[in-house]
Amino acid sequence: MVVLRALLLLVLLQGAVRAEEGKWTPPQVLEFNPGTLQAMGLRIPPEEIWSPSKGTGLLSAAVNIGGCSASFVSATGLIATNHHCIFGILQEHSSTDNNIIRDGFLARTRQQELPSRTTRVTVPLAFTDVTEDIERAATGASDDLARYRAISRRQKELVAACESKPHRRCRLSQFDGGVQYILQEMMELPDVRLVYAPPRAIGEYGGGGGKWVWAPPTGDFGIARAYVSPSGEPAEYSPNNVPYLPQRFLQISQKPLRDGDFVMVLGYPGVTYRSLLAKEMEERRDLFFQRRVDLYGEWIELLNAMSREDEKGGIAVAADLKTLLNRHKNAQGQLDGFRRGSLVEKHREMEDRVATWAADRPEWSRAVAARSELLHHFEERLVTWERDFLFDNIAAGSKALYWATVLVQMVQEREKPDMERPEAFMERNLPRFTTLLHRQQKSYFEAADQQLFASWIRRARNLPVSQRIRAVDKFFPASMTEEQVRDAIQQLYHNSRVTDLDSRNQMIRESVDSLRKRQDPLLQFAWELEAQLADFREASHRWEGTVSRLRPQWRKAVMAYAGKPVAPDANGTLRVSFAHVKGYSPRDGVYYQPFTTLRGVLEKHTGKDPFDAPETLRNAARNVEHSRWKDQELGELAVNFLATGDTTGGNSGSPVVNGYGELVGLNFDRVWENVANDFGYNPAIARNVSVDIRYLLWTLEEIDKATELLGELQVAPATTQP
Amino acid sequence: MVVLRALLLLVLLQGAVRAEEGKWTPPQVLEFNPGTLQAMGLRIPPEEIWSPSKGTGLLSAAVNIGGCSASFVSATGLIATNHHCIFGILQEHSSTDNNIIRDGFLARTRQQELPSRTTRVTVPLAFTDVTEDIERAATGASDDLARYRAISRRQKELVAACESKPHRRCRLSQFDGGVQYILQEMMELPDVRLVYAPPRAIGEYGGGGGKWVWAPPTGDFGIARAYVSPSGEPAEYSPNNVPYLPQRFLQISQKPLRDGDFVMVLGYPGVTYRSLLAKEMEERRDLFFQRRVDLYGEWIELLNAMSREDEKGGIAVAADLKTLLNRHKNAQGQLDGFRRGSLVEKHREMEDRVATWAADRPEWSRAVAARSELLHHFEERLVTWERDFLFDNIAAGSKALYWATVLVQMVQEREKPDMERPEAFMERNLPRFTTLLHRQQKSYFEAADQQLFASWIRRARNLPVSQRIRAVDKFFPASMTEEQVRDAIQQLYHNSRVTDLDSRNQMIRESVDSLRKRQDPLLQFAWELEAQLADFREASHRWEGTVSRLRPQWRKAVMAYAGKPVAPDANGTLRVSFAHVKGYSPRDGVYYQPFTTLRGVLEKHTGKDPFDAPETLRNAARNVEHSRWKDQELGELAVNFLATGDTTGGNSGSPVVNGYGELVGLNFDRVWENVANDFGYNPAIARNVSVDIRYLLWTLEEIDKATELLGELQVAPATTQP
Repeated sequence: MVVLRALLLLVLLQGAVRAEEGKWTPPQVLEFNPGTLQAMGLRIPPEEIWSPSKGTGLLSAAVNIGGCSASFVSATGLIATNHHCIFGILQEHSSTDNNIIRDGFLARTRQQELPSRTTRVTVPLAFTDVTEDIERAATGASDDLARYRAISRRQKELVAACESKPHRRCRLSQFDGGVQYILQEMMELPDVRLVYAPPRAIGEYGGGGGKWVWAPPTGDFGIARAYVSPSGEPAEYSPNNVPYLPQRFLQISQKPLRDGDFVMVLGYPGVTYRSLLAKEMEERRDLFFQRRVDLYGEWIELLNAMSREDEKGGIAVAADLKTLLNRHKNAQGQLDGFRRGSLVEKHREMEDRVATWAADRPEWSRAVAARSELLHHFEERLVTWERDFLFDNIAAGSKALYWATVLVQMVQEREKPDMERPEAFMERNLPRFTTLLHRQQKSYFEAADQQLFASWIRRARNLPVSQRIRAVDKFFPASMTEEQVRDAIQQLYHNSRVTDLDSRNQMIRESVDSLRKRQDPLLQFAWELEAQLADFREASHRWEGTVSRLRPQWRKAVMAYAGKPVAPDANGTLRVSFAHVKGYSPRDGVYYQPFTTLRGVLEKHTGKDPFDAPETLRNAARNVEHSRWKDQELGELAVNFLATGDTTGGNSGSPVVNGYGELVGLNFDRVWENVANDFGYNPAIARNVSVDIRYLLWTLEEIDKATELLGELQVAPATTQP
Repeated sequence: MVVLRALLLLVLLQGAVRAEEGKWTPPQVLEFNPGTLQAMGLRIPPEEIWSPSKGTGLLSAAVNIGGCSASFVSATGLIATNHHCIFGILQEHSSTDNNIIRDGFLARTRQQELPSRTTRVTVPLAFTDVTEDIERAATGASDDLARYRAISRRQKELVAACESKPHRRCRLSQFDGGVQYILQEMMELPDVRLVYAPPRAIGEYGGGGGKWVWAPPTGDFGIARAYVSPSGEPAEYSPNNVPYLPQRFLQISQKPLRDGDFVMVLGYPGVTYRSLLAKEMEERRDLFFQRRVDLYGEWIELLNAMSREDEKGGIAVAADLKTLLNRHKNAQGQLDGFRRGSLVEKHREMEDRVATWAADRPEWSRAVAARSELLHHFEERLVTWERDFLFDNIAAGSKALYWATVLVQMVQEREKPDMERPEAFMERNLPRFTTLLHRQQKSYFEAADQQLFASWIRRARNLPVSQRIRAVDKFFPASMTEEQVRDAIQQLYHNSRVTDLDSRNQMIRESVDSLRKRQDPLLQFAWELEAQLADFREASHRWEGTVSRLRPQWRKAVMAYAGKPVAPDANGTLRVSFAHVKGYSPRDGVYYQPFTTLRGVLEKHTGKDPFDAPETLRNAARNVEHSRWKDQELGELAVNFLATGDTTGGNSGSPVVNGYGELVGLNFDRVWENVANDFGYNPAIARNVSVDIRYLLWTLEEIDKATELLGELQVAPATTQP
C-alpha cells in the first residue's frame, strides 16, 4: 500500500517535471489531471486559472503592454510590469530639467500620473478556434502558393470582421504551423498613465538586458494605470477619464517565497521553434547561427573601425552597432546552448521514436508521409540557402540597399488592392512603416554604409554558380577587380537620391512608372534585384503553404505518441508556464542560488554605472533588518529569484504567481545559459529570472514612503514596532 | 539527558569551529581536548599526529622542498608536492628537443629519474624551545637597539652550533614577536630527483597561480624522490646513492573524500600578521596597501608604455612587470578582504575586550602597559612613514638606484666581522646574493629605469618638510624644474659605471675607500642616501627590539583571556590546520561547490592556453565512467576541492590528510576572496584549494599507465572488470 502510494507519487512527480517544459495555452491547463498540478504545488482549482465558459480566471488579469506582458494588481486599474516595459513613457516625459529616467517617478495623486501618447494595454476577452474555417478556405487550393494566399486572405477577413466591433484589437494566430488557428479578441485601452518607476540605477541595476551573468540584483519593476471614459469604454486620453475597473486583478502575496516553491508565469511569449523537425533545427545550428556569427562579426568590426575614424559617424551607427552586437552575441549563445543541451540530437531521437511508433500504425501513415514530404521540400530550399541568407539580411546591412529595395517593392504593392498586400504595406500599417524609414535617416553614415554595401556585394560575388544573383552579376561582373567594384559602388551612391531624406519621402508616394523614369542608379540596381527578390518572397510564401499543409499532420502524430498535452510553440498568445523556484549550476563547481538579495546590491555598489545604487536605497538598506519584507529564512531582503519557468521574449513583465494565484514576482529575463531554450528545454539550465515582489514593496515603503499606492495594492500599513 | 548531550555536542562543535582558525604548532595539537578533535572528525589519537617524546608522527612525513611543503608517500622516499613546486627541476632538464615542461615526465625506472642541482628537501628532526636562552642573552641590554643586537647575535650562535652537526640545517624562529623562540633542527637531503610531472596543460590548467576564479580544475601535482648515500647519510647526487627510507610516510586514502569531511593540512606556512595590534593593521590597510596600489599602479603604467615603444626593452622588464602586477593585484585583494571581513574592526573589538578584561586584573597590568608602550613607539614610527615607504621600495623600482645603494652598504658590511653583519651579507650567503645582482642585469632597460628613478625622485621631492631625504634635496634641489631633474638623472646614468655588469662585479669586491675614490655620480648619490638609510635600518632594528620586548607581554594576556590554545602567526615552521571540506559563497546569489570535476576540465577546454587539455587526457576521459577513481556520489572524477583550511604562502604542496591521517589531497592555493586571510580569519570565505589525490591516481593509471609507480604508492592494480 505504501509502495503503491510511493509509485503513484512518483508518477505524479514525473508528470510534474514534464509539465515544467511548455508554455501552455489556457484550454490546455484544463486538460491536465488536476492531481498532477496539485502535486506540483497548485492550491486552487485549475478552473480558477482559466474558465472558458465564464471567459475569466487568473489569466484575464494578464495583459499585454507594448509587446511586454503585465498584470492588473488593483481594483482601480493599476498595472505591474517591468521597468524596461514602461521605459517609453519615461522617455516621453523626461527632460534635462526633470530627468525621471534617471531619478524615477512617483505620482502621489492621480492628477500627477503621466499620460502616454504611445503605450497601449490590450486585455484578453475571448479566444475562438477558427481552424475549420481556415482549413475550409484553403480547401481546393491548386498548389501550396495558392494555399498560402487563401489562408492569408481568410485571416485578414476574420481579423477585419472582429475589429469592426468598437475598441477591439484582433489577431489570428497559427499554432505549430497550423495544428490550430485561434482568433483572439482583445480590448485595447489607449489611455495608460505612469504611476511609478524606480530610478534607472535600481530598475537597470547591473546594466539590464540579459547580457549579464547572475546576478546583479535588478529592480526591473514599474507601475502604470489604465483609464477609460466615464461610461467605462476604452477611450483616448482625456482628463475626464476614470480608472479602468478590471474584471480580475492579482492579489499580492503576503507569504514569503522560498526555494522549491511552486510558481506560474502568465504572459505573452513571442516565438519559439521547438515544433521544427530535427533537420530544420540542424539548419539553424549549422547554417543560420554560424553565418550570423560570421556576417555580423564582419559588420561589427567594420563599423567599429569606421567609428574610430569618424566620431559623428560613430554616433550615427551606434544603435545599429548595438543591434548587431546583440544579435552576434545571441547567435553565439544559441550555438553554445545547442551544444550544451545536445538539442538537435535529443530532438532527432524523439522524432525517430515517434516515426518508429507511427510506422506500425496505419492511421498515422499520412503523418509519416507528411514528414517525408516536408523534409523533401525543406531540402529543396537548402539549394539556395546562401543566396537567401543574403536576401534576408538586406535590412540588417547597408541602408541604401535596403531603402532602394523597399521603395521598389512598396510602389508596386501600393498599386494592388489593400487586402492583397503583405501586412506591412496595408493602408492601416503604412504610416508606421514610413515613419520608420524616416527615422532611419539619423542612423545613416555614408562611408560606413558603402562598406556594408561592398561587403554584401563581395559575399554575393562569391556565391556558387547555382545561386547567382543576376543583378549583382550585371552591375558587378566577375571581370571587375575588388577596386573597380569599390569605385562602382561609390558612383552608385554618388548618383543616387535614395539616401536623401526629402527625395526618399517623395519617392514613397510615386507610381511605379514615375519611379522607374527617375533612372536613379541605386533604384535601377534594386529593380534588377526585385525580379529575384519577388521569386524569393514567393518561394517563402509557397513554403509557408507547404508547412501549413504538412506540419500539422506530423505534429498530431507527435501529440498522439505523447499521449498527454504537448505545449505548442510560443506565438505571442497568452500562456501559462508551471515552474518551481530553483537555482542551477552554470558550470562545473559553481551553483547559482535561487535568490539574490539587497546585500548583493550593496556588495556590488561601486558608485559608477551600472552599479551605482542610489543614496536613498543605501540609506534605507541600513534598516532592512527591521523591515517586514526581509525574508526570515534568507536573513536578507530577496531581490531577484530563479525559477524553472519556460519563457522567451515577450514574457518580460509577466506576473509570477504562487500556488494560490497570488503575485510573488515579475519575470524580466532568462539566464544567459538558457538562450537556446527556444529550440529545446534543457531542465538543467532552463531558468527564468524574476524580481521578487517584496523588493518592490520594500522600495515603495522604505524608499518612497508610497503609503497610498501600497494601500491601493491592498498592503496594510506596517504595525508600528518599537 | 538528551538535552544535555545535545548541549555537549554544541559546545564541542563550537570548539571545533574555533579550531578551524589557526595554524597550530605540533605541541599545540596535544593541548587540545582530544574530544574536541574527535568531534571535528579526527579518528586517530592526537599523539599520532605528533609525539614529542618519540619525535615522530604524521607530521614527520611533512617536509620542506624549496620553500614549498611536501610529504613522503612511500617507504622508498617518494615525495608528493605541487607541480609548481618542482617546476625548477623541469626547467633544468627541459629543452626544445625534449620539452618536459610542456609534455610532462614519467620515469619508468629509477635510472630514468632526473637529478636536480638546486632542489633540496629538509626533514624535520627536532624542535627545541630556546626562549629562556634568548631572553637571558637579551637581559641587561641598555636599550631596544642593543636588545635587538643581542638577540640577533645569540640567534646566529645557536644556529651555528646546531649546524655543526653533519647534514643539519637549523633555523631559529620567533613566534608572535617573541612569545616563544624555537630552534628547529632539520636534516637536509641534497639528492632529489624528478619521478613524475604531468604536462603543463594539466599541472597549470587555467593558468595557475591564484589569480583565477574558482575553478579551472588544475592538476597541480608532481612526484620526486629523495636519495641518500648507500650508508643512509644525506649526500650530494651520486649514481650510487639509494632511495631515502623515511621514518614515516603517508598512506594514500582509498576512501572517497566528500563534502563535510574532516581534513588536516600539514606544512610550512610562511608568514601571517594576525598578532599585530588593530592599529598596526590599520596602517597596513590605510597606508601600506593603499600606497602600493598607487606606486605600483604608476610603475606598471610606465613599464607598459615603455614596453610598447621598445620591444627588446619590453622583454627585459617583463619579469619585473609581472611581479609588480602580482603585487598590485594582491594589494587590491588585501584591501577588498579587509573591507569584506571588517578585519580591523573585528580585531579592535577583540583587543578592547582583552584590554577591559586585563584592566581589572593586577597580574596583567604590565600587559596593558606593554600594549600602550608598543602603540606609542608604533605611532612614533608613523611620523616618517611616507619617507620610509620610499626607502623600502628602492629594491622594487630603479635597478640603478638599488644597485648603487646595495654596493655602498655591501662594501661597508664586508669590513665588519661575519657575525655582526646582517644575514644577507654573511659569508655563507654572499655568493647567492652576488649571483642575484648578476642575474638582474638581463632585466635592465635603461630608458625605463631612468623613468622609475625619476618617479622615485619626484615622490621624494614631494615629501613633507618633516620627512625630507637630504640626498634628494642636495642632488635635486627644490629650485630645479621637472625638466632639469630629468636632465640631471640622465647625466647621472650617463656618467656612472654602476649599471655596467663588469664594473659592478669589480665594485662588489672593492674596499670602502677605493669605491669612494671612483667618484661615480650614482654612487655619490648613494653615499649621501646611505647616512639616512643606515638610520632607517637602525630604527627598524630598534623597533624589532621594542617588539620583542613588548609584544610577548600583550600576547600572553590575549592567550590568558582566550583560556584555550591560540595559534601563533605563521613563521615558516611546521604547522597543522584542522578543516572540513566545504564550499562557500563568493558573492550574493552564487555558491562555489566544494568539488570541481573532470567534466569541468572538458567543459572549459578551448584548445588554447590556458585551457588546452591534452589529447591523452581527453581520450582517457571518455572512459572515466568506468574508472575506480570516479566518485559515485558526485558521479564525476573529483579534481580540486575546497576546505576551510587556514593556509598561506608556503603551504603549497602541503599534504591534506583525512581523519585517519591518510592522504586525500595536495594543497596548492587559497581562493581569491581569501587573500587578506593573513590578517584575520573570515570563516565565510576562508577556503584553501587542493587537488584531489584521486585525480593524480586517475592520471597515473589512465593516462600514463604508471603501474609500477602506483605499486610503490601501495595502490593495488585495478581488478579487471568486464
